[in-house]
Amino acid sequence: MTEFKSNIRTIEWIDNVSRMVDQTVIPYEFKYVDIETGQQMYDAIQTMIVRGAPAIGIAGAHGVALYALELEKENLSNPDFIEKLIEKSNYLISSRPTAVNLRWAVEKQIELVKNTQSDIKGIVQELIENGIKLENEDIEINKKIGDFGAQIVPKGATILTHCNAGALATVGYGTALGVVRSAYAKDNTIQVFADETRPRQQGARITTFELVMDKIPVTLITDGMCSYFMKKGMIDLVVVGADRIAANGDTANKIGTYTVAIAAKYHNIPFYVAAPISTIDLRIKTGEQIPIEERSHEEVTNINGKRICAEGVNIINPGFDVTPNDLITGIITEIGILKPEEILSKVSKQNS
Amino acid sequence: MTEFKSNIRTIEWIDNVSRMVDQTVIPYEFKYVDIETGQQMYDAIQTMIVRGAPAIGIAGAHGVALYALELEKENLSNPDFIEKLIEKSNYLISSRPTAVNLRWAVEKQIELVKNTQSDIKGIVQELIENGIKLENEDIEINKKIGDFGAQIVPKGATILTHCNAGALATVGYGTALGVVRSAYAKDNTIQVFADETRPRQQGARITTFELVMDKIPVTLITDGMCSYFMKKGMIDLVVVGADRIAANGDTANKIGTYTVAIAAKYHNIPFYVAAPISTIDLRIKTGEQIPIEERSHEEVTNINGKRICAEGVNIINPGFDVTPNDLITGIITEIGILKPEEILSKVSKQNS
Repeated sequence: MTEFKSNIRTIEWIDNVSRMVDQTVIPYEFKYVDIETGQQMYDAIQTMIVRGAPAIGIAGAHGVALYALELEKENLSNPDFIEKLIEKSNYLISSRPTAVNLRWAVEKQIELVKNTQSDIKGIVQELIENGIKLENEDIEINKKIGDFGAQIVPKGATILTHCNAGALATVGYGTALGVVRSAYAKDNTIQVFADETRPRQQGARITTFELVMDKIPVTLITDGMCSYFMKKGMIDLVVVGADRIAANGDTANKIGTYTVAIAAKYHNIPFYVAAPISTIDLRIKTGEQIPIEERSHEEVTNINGKRICAEGVNIINPGFDVTPNDLITGIITEIGILKPEEILSKVSKQNS
Repeated sequence: MTEFKSNIRTIEWIDNVSRMVDQTVIPYEFKYVDIETGQQMYDAIQTMIVRGAPAIGIAGAHGVALYALELEKENLSNPDFIEKLIEKSNYLISSRPTAVNLRWAVEKQIELVKNTQSDIKGIVQELIENGIKLENEDIEINKKIGDFGAQIVPKGATILTHCNAGALATVGYGTALGVVRSAYAKDNTIQVFADETRPRQQGARITTFELVMDKIPVTLITDGMCSYFMKKGMIDLVVVGADRIAANGDTANKIGTYTVAIAAKYHNIPFYVAAPISTIDLRIKTGEQIPIEERSHEEVTNINGKRICAEGVNIINPGFDVTPNDLITGIITEIGILKPEEILSKVSKQNS
């Protein structure tokens, strides 16, 4: 078993393949898989071999480069190459509808293709290099998020998190867990409570794995327990990641986040979202407009391949929910901690 | 596989044994086990072969009768018999600390023993008959709870429930699911949303099983999803059972209930508790005083025998939480629907 280190790369472009940690087998196994074609990337994103909004952004950028490598072999004219590549890129975006980073990164690649003067061989090379650049930037961004976030973590705090917004949800370091890592580097008396996060259990499987490997104390709780520990005064703040943030600060994140946010509000506990600016979608005014992915029923009815309920039961399996801006204390980004109402002005400025 | 019918008895005294449905194997198997000794009853309660506050009340009454049958063979003097039986009864009560029905039923038996003029043989017979009487009363009480509760279920309503407060949590019919059954008998357009209820998954394993067998439409959701469906307007009311209700209406129930109650309040959705008067503990003023059972860590870390998280994680596993009275719309009992502030006057009157 390969050893996990928090400075590993969850996804990395190496020798014309996208090498990624297979997140479906954690914590039982820690292994890499090499994604060699665009279709393999589509499948890897959809089946969650790679997951986490920032990580699937990079996966999208790599996926465009993989499609470009395939199309390069078809001896197409330059316009045909570009047309086909855009078609494939849009298909790649459709693999997971909620996290906006996927679209953001794929569109970065398409923009490059539209603006370059290079020939096909040159375009392919530029796409690969741009993917690697986005990889490197992701880690730098996460460290900035972590450093800003560490400022709002009280001494000896217990931080509750939901799902996994860690090194394994990004290229490395993490967003919500980036805040934890930066805070822990300054104060090793902090600790984490991790929600299991049914149905896919990313909190149990991935967050506990990351934190145990980093020797940061972590307590696993079931999703319904959060209020019990909040009432007891055992949770000082909540920090979660995000899949898409609307212009008004409404935040889509893993299903169950909204319930935690309501419980935090009820107990007057600060609730923070940690995410890169690329997760903010200014084209979307409020959370109402964020598409929510409906996932397979088996994620709810089965665990580790075994059914946990009666046959004949109905299932609805929304992968995400939207936490309204009035439940969010602040959004921790690489440009600082923003109040939801500051997003529009500060992020527009940043992008201009 | 024995067929489940909602008119089955979950626990029944037959030929000097306590026959009960083994709830640890549902929905994979539906089978009865015969409990033949007091110690077996202690173990059956603790390992949750029998669970649900009203059902473990009856299990306690049967357990005292089983201990009496054993002590009868020891040729003790009448005072020694009574002393030893009381000692065994107190041991039985300690098997699960939160649900008060266990103590309530065992104390009913001890009261009988203390007040009777019969010889040992007579006492044993009276304990058995009293156990059977409590069994029969439980079903009658649940039907009354169901009928009162049905009055507050709007036409075509969707009822969210947590854990299992059904036929399998009682001798038969159920408390929260008794309300569902009575409502469904009048209006077959109602439906149920069942929380999975980690860690033991009684909602997934037992509630979906009961309702599918009764052909009442049921949708299984994970514990974190409740707020998502509330926000969408898909939940009309919440009805849950109870393990102990304090004099002020604060209610201990399966862990996760408090989170659902907060979410219901946030969305202005009525939140009802359905429970017999025997679940109300007037000796306890507020929920602060209710002992919360801490259960095995494996319930959180393992599902179906397989670990779901990293080694080295911390666990705290409270079996119950307390929902404060101000989150409770009403408590549906066999004497009517009580507001939390009415408990003290109405229940004292009933008991006097």
